[in-house]
Amino acid sequence: MAILSDVATEVLIPIAAIVGIVFSISQWVIVARVKLAPSPPGASRSKDGYGDSLIEEEEGINDPNVVAKCAEIQTAIAEGATSFLFTEYQYVGVFMSIFAVVIFLFLGSVEGFSTKTHPCTYSKDRECKPALFNALFSTVSFLLGAITSVVSGYLGMKIATYANARTTLEARKGVGKAFITAFRSGSVMGFLLASNGLLVLYITINLFKLYYGDDWEGLFESITGYGLGGSSMALFGRVGGGIYTKAADVGADLVGKVERNIPEDDPRNPAVIADNVGDNVGDIAGMGSDLFGSYAESSCAALVVASISSFGVNHDFTGMCYPLLISSMGIIVCLITTLFATDFFEIKAVKEIEPALKKQLIISTALMTVGIALISWLALPYKFTIFNFGEQKEVTNWGLFLCVSIGLWAGLIIGYVTEYYTSNAYSPVQDVADACRTGAATNVIFGLALGYKSVIIPIFAISIGIYVSFTIAAMYGIAVAALGMLSTIATGLSIDAYGPISDNAGGIAEMAGMSHRIRERTDALDAAGNTTAAIGKGFAIGSAALVSLALFGAFVSRAGVKVVDVLSPKVIIGLVVGAMLPYWFSAMTMKSVGSAALKMVEEVRRQFNTIPGLMEGTGKPDYANCVKISTDASIKQMIPPGALVMLTPLIVGTLFGVQTLSGVLAGALVSGVQVAISASNTGGAWDNAKKYIEAGASEHARSLGPKGSDCHKAAVIGDTIGDPLKDTSGPSLNILIKLMAVESLVFAPFFATHGGLLFKLF
Amino acid sequence: MAILSDVATEVLIPIAAIVGIVFSISQWVIVARVKLAPSPPGASRSKDGYGDSLIEEEEGINDPNVVAKCAEIQTAIAEGATSFLFTEYQYVGVFMSIFAVVIFLFLGSVEGFSTKTHPCTYSKDRECKPALFNALFSTVSFLLGAITSVVSGYLGMKIATYANARTTLEARKGVGKAFITAFRSGSVMGFLLASNGLLVLYITINLFKLYYGDDWEGLFESITGYGLGGSSMALFGRVGGGIYTKAADVGADLVGKVERNIPEDDPRNPAVIADNVGDNVGDIAGMGSDLFGSYAESSCAALVVASISSFGVNHDFTGMCYPLLISSMGIIVCLITTLFATDFFEIKAVKEIEPALKKQLIISTALMTVGIALISWLALPYKFTIFNFGEQKEVTNWGLFLCVSIGLWAGLIIGYVTEYYTSNAYSPVQDVADACRTGAATNVIFGLALGYKSVIIPIFAISIGIYVSFTIAAMYGIAVAALGMLSTIATGLSIDAYGPISDNAGGIAEMAGMSHRIRERTDALDAAGNTTAAIGKGFAIGSAALVSLALFGAFVSRAGVKVVDVLSPKVIIGLVVGAMLPYWFSAMTMKSVGSAALKMVEEVRRQFNTIPGLMEGTGKPDYANCVKISTDASIKQMIPPGALVMLTPLIVGTLFGVQTLSGVLAGALVSGVQVAISASNTGGAWDNAKKYIEAGASEHARSLGPKGSDCHKAAVIGDTIGDPLKDTSGPSLNILIKLMAVESLVFAPFFATHGGLLFKLF
Repeated sequence: MAILSDVATEVLIPIAAIVGIVFSISQWVIVARVKLAPSPPGASRSKDGYGDSLIEEEEGINDPNVVAKCAEIQTAIAEGATSFLFTEYQYVGVFMSIFAVVIFLFLGSVEGFSTKTHPCTYSKDRECKPALFNALFSTVSFLLGAITSVVSGYLGMKIATYANARTTLEARKGVGKAFITAFRSGSVMGFLLASNGLLVLYITINLFKLYYGDDWEGLFESITGYGLGGSSMALFGRVGGGIYTKAADVGADLVGKVERNIPEDDPRNPAVIADNVGDNVGDIAGMGSDLFGSYAESSCAALVVASISSFGVNHDFTGMCYPLLISSMGIIVCLITTLFATDFFEIKAVKEIEPALKKQLIISTALMTVGIALISWLALPYKFTIFNFGEQKEVTNWGLFLCVSIGLWAGLIIGYVTEYYTSNAYSPVQDVADACRTGAATNVIFGLALGYKSVIIPIFAISIGIYVSFTIAAMYGIAVAALGMLSTIATGLSIDAYGPISDNAGGIAEMAGMSHRIRERTDALDAAGNTTAAIGKGFAIGSAALVSLALFGAFVSRAGVKVVDVLSPKVIIGLVVGAMLPYWFSAMTMKSVGSAALKMVEEVRRQFNTIPGLMEGTGKPDYANCVKISTDASIKQMIPPGALVMLTPLIVGTLFGVQTLSGVLAGALVSGVQVAISASNTGGAWDNAKKYIEAGASEHARSLGPKGSDCHKAAVIGDTIGDPLKDTSGPSLNILIKLMAVESLVFAPFFATHGGLLFKLF
Repeated sequence: MAILSDVATEVLIPIAAIVGIVFSISQWVIVARVKLAPSPPGASRSKDGYGDSLIEEEEGINDPNVVAKCAEIQTAIAEGATSFLFTEYQYVGVFMSIFAVVIFLFLGSVEGFSTKTHPCTYSKDRECKPALFNALFSTVSFLLGAITSVVSGYLGMKIATYANARTTLEARKGVGKAFITAFRSGSVMGFLLASNGLLVLYITINLFKLYYGDDWEGLFESITGYGLGGSSMALFGRVGGGIYTKAADVGADLVGKVERNIPEDDPRNPAVIADNVGDNVGDIAGMGSDLFGSYAESSCAALVVASISSFGVNHDFTGMCYPLLISSMGIIVCLITTLFATDFFEIKAVKEIEPALKKQLIISTALMTVGIALISWLALPYKFTIFNFGEQKEVTNWGLFLCVSIGLWAGLIIGYVTEYYTSNAYSPVQDVADACRTGAATNVIFGLALGYKSVIIPIFAISIGIYVSFTIAAMYGIAVAALGMLSTIATGLSIDAYGPISDNAGGIAEMAGMSHRIRERTDALDAAGNTTAAIGKGFAIGSAALVSLALFGAFVSRAGVKVVDVLSPKVIIGLVVGAMLPYWFSAMTMKSVGSAALKMVEEVRRQFNTIPGLMEGTGKPDYANCVKISTDASIKQMIPPGALVMLTPLIVGTLFGVQTLSGVLAGALVSGVQVAISASNTGGAWDNAKKYIEAGASEHARSLGPKGSDCHKAAVIGDTIGDPLKDTSGPSLNILIKLMAVESLVFAPFFATHGGLLFKLF
């Protein structure tokens, strides 16, 4: 038996979650100490503990209006973001209600809405709860997952729009101060999300246990609804947010930068507030929901497989909770890691920012490896068995340690490869920038080639991770490998959220008319954020691949499928069509961004042409109209791709059955990962190639620049093309592959009973 | 038993092939009647039977120098193409020799180079020939396939470079005359290739039979080398030719059109001859080899499966030859179809060209359906059995008719969908053109979205084809479905080859300084050719998908694999890595084109800057240097992608074994098809969006133009990006998926015996 007692497990998990939440609140409190109101000189600064003199003071332009202006812009951004999210949630709320009914009806119909218990599938001597109650509890956990996802995204957006102007103000004191403010705010989101997700899941399990008692099969099957709820919200968040942010960004750039030749984030550009709102609803709220979804799904996949393995059959509670214990350890490890950035070291110069962020990844990975070893030793018996498609497979605790660790380290490798291909410190992006010499066409050709090439190493890392963990512990191994990759999610999210906050901070500095030196500092923060955003996307995709494979395994187990044979026509057509879905989905999202951007361009042009004095800075642009265009377009356009993803498993499962559905899931997985990685990295590379030319930090970069040169114009075209690739279709594909898998898992009993209508008819 | 006797079969196949060859020669003779020498007025024209007056005569500029100039340009193009192909064949020859040794050694080692006979695998009561001799005969058929492929490509190039200037001269008499010349020349290639491929295969089978006698298993296993040989040549032809043509095209456009503002094919542009050579080595020789490869492979796949089905076991020769009979019927049907274009109807106006070409597709498909029914009725017994992964499956002759027909019609659907998405007569391309209003970025975003979207219907068509033919007759059904799609290959190739010939004709008209009206006629021919080229690529990809699946099935059968289970770690990592290969491959080919184009740009710029009077038309550009740059770049750059494709099956099979290799093949297939279709169609759409703006045929098109406007410049950027997508990486992917499958099939006995070293060691 395991060293850790059941009672200790029951106590330790919520403690870790609460520690995370407390830490998160404490960070918020520290950020809140930066006051957004002009303060009497001397008094307040000493109260803050910051004795540094401000740039404005140095330059003799200490202007209280600037602070007021920052506060005003922040309010506008926060209002825009809140209003968009509320509109989005209304639509999604309707969808959620309908889908909850669908879940209940479909799952309830499995045994004809009977309320009789039946013998368990995997422990024949035990009685399992009736399907009708499984349907009810699945629906409840679906709604819980959806709500937790909404709350995570919303809170993230709140702290981000709270911190952006504060980061700008801190930039007056130095780059280190600004960095810490942005990073702390990011960690509020990271820890809140990780802890919240764990706590809600833990409480749900304990509450459901009151009803289910002995029937762990039914209990953990119902829990899978939690993953589905989280992920469906994430879909709409990512797609809606992605369309919003890129419609605004592309629209603002096409008129502002290209036609009117005004800088990015210039307050004269009517789309500038929409652009900054977009960062918060797309990159913060959308990404938060996405990673929460991954976390919830990998936990659910691990739990459902564990419930039919020896842990579940023997009612070994500590072993059952191994996935939750890994996540708990992750929170503690990330907490220590964060202190390295905020307290143990101090950033003094611009060039220290990126290494500091990268150090976070290495420290958390190294510490977590020890943490995993500790948990594997304490929480697992030396030997146990894992369900492996119809038979039980013997596994040791050290084998499982290896599975989790390989996922963790594969994540780090993917992160580093992504950085290599998207940071302008290395030759790939510099080559792309160099290709701008001969115009936009060669820039795009080289950028596409770079994206394709960047797929190679991540795929090998994922494959090795899959092979090792699958061989050691079948689908459970893959599920815990995914959890391993996500175990440092709090740190990953902190770094991720840091990016858009810095981006916003820069925008506010520009709009508030702050000095060039402040803008330089926020630009440096933002550039580092760009690379970490690409790393974050790499993590998200890598974990999505593992998670969806784990969910696929859980689906197959639950549907009672033992073989998915490529040499069967049902499976092969599923594979081919599944591999096509990422293209269909991308076609929709790309076109949505394109059309919405065209509308935005027309509106911005209209304002420039009709509002007198706008270019001269005497007229005031109508920001609200641009916000409305982005909102309307994204709400309307998120429905078709959303429907494609949500309906495909239902239609395929019902009409063609579980074999074809298995093919579709496998096809979408293997093809979607490649499209997602290449799209994200191509876009990231174009963005940084442009920044490379703009920054002009080397002899080579200066020979391509300056801003406004032909090379730079070619680079801007590439950047604009990359926007929807890297921020809309690329990251949304993660959700496509995960969501179809978790939906199939939830509906597995229905498909197994009533599926394949078309083949039954003919 | 079948109605058709064995003797009749023995006679009919070579007769059909010879009829095709005779027809092809007769077309060549007719084309040759157009004289490339200035002729005394009156006499020669009446001798030619053409009494029409020339445009030059009408306009009073009847200049014998023009004819001489055309002849001179034609010679330059032909010399460039011949010299490139010879250089390419030298390198490929070395590779072929090495690979022939590898085949012999690997296959010979299966039974330790023993010369003893052994009991057959599928007919235990019969003695089969020793593995060493199978190795020898496989090597011989590999070399035969390679040589036939080389000859096909070379002859195609010869007739194309013979016909281009003749088409230009005929354009002086009218668009109909020019059309017929170009189309006849295309059909020379189409029929030569189809008949030649059939005849060589037929003779090889009959010669091998002298040794093999009763042992049909060994006989048809050895024949698979023919497919491998054809396909490996096609790989280098497609990749080398593709890099050549696009390096020249992109290089010529970037300096000529964009920087110097001179028209396409302007004789002042130093890269113009290289560009025209490229059309012949890429689109003619490369595509010829590609389709010959598909044809050879699908025949081999069908034959190898048939040899272990009832046809082979019962030695039913007519049934065995069913695939060859289908191809024979195809030649006859295409012959009749060609007469519709050349003799039964006459083209009088520009707008009749595209319908005439499309009619060819419909007529050949309709007639062929009848032909298939006839062959299925005559050559097949009513009932027979087909090998289906370890068991025999009963099939009727009408079932098989359905398999072939569904392949044929799926091809037509794919062709029409491709046309819809790439012709500027429909809204998708017009939308892309419209997106040029806001610049190159939105053009590219819309174009990418269009390419992704264009995948949907072809994939459904392929899936339905797979499902129906697989369900009816297992992997044999898929092989004959592929053959069905390729049965009208002679017509398909005629139409395909017509395009580059017309393109060249236009180039020659421009370079020879012929009148604007002639250029208008050749442009109209070329525009129709663009759409048909896209249709041809659609066919090539669709058939490649079916062929590679059929080869995959044959490989699996031959390697003795009964199940390829996605739920096994060995298979799933194969799937993931296989799905990555098209990206790796595309990264290489895209980057190759990019780098080669950059070199070309430098050279063209250098010439414009250093050769005095070049822009004024008084200096003469150094065409040869540009030809050399394209040649060197393509020869050097075709090696890495070639090695990737050729080595992957060998490495995976040897180190990881047949299960992982099956996964790799399936993954590459399902992912590669999508990449190939979307790349081809995106490129085709950009090309035609540009042409739409240039032609200005509608109110909408005129609002975007004229040439040189901002919209048009944005469209040119899209066109340039599309060039490597549609002519290099897209079409090469067909070969990637086919070639890996056929190579696995040839080496299957080796992998089954000695493969999976890595798993055996650990």
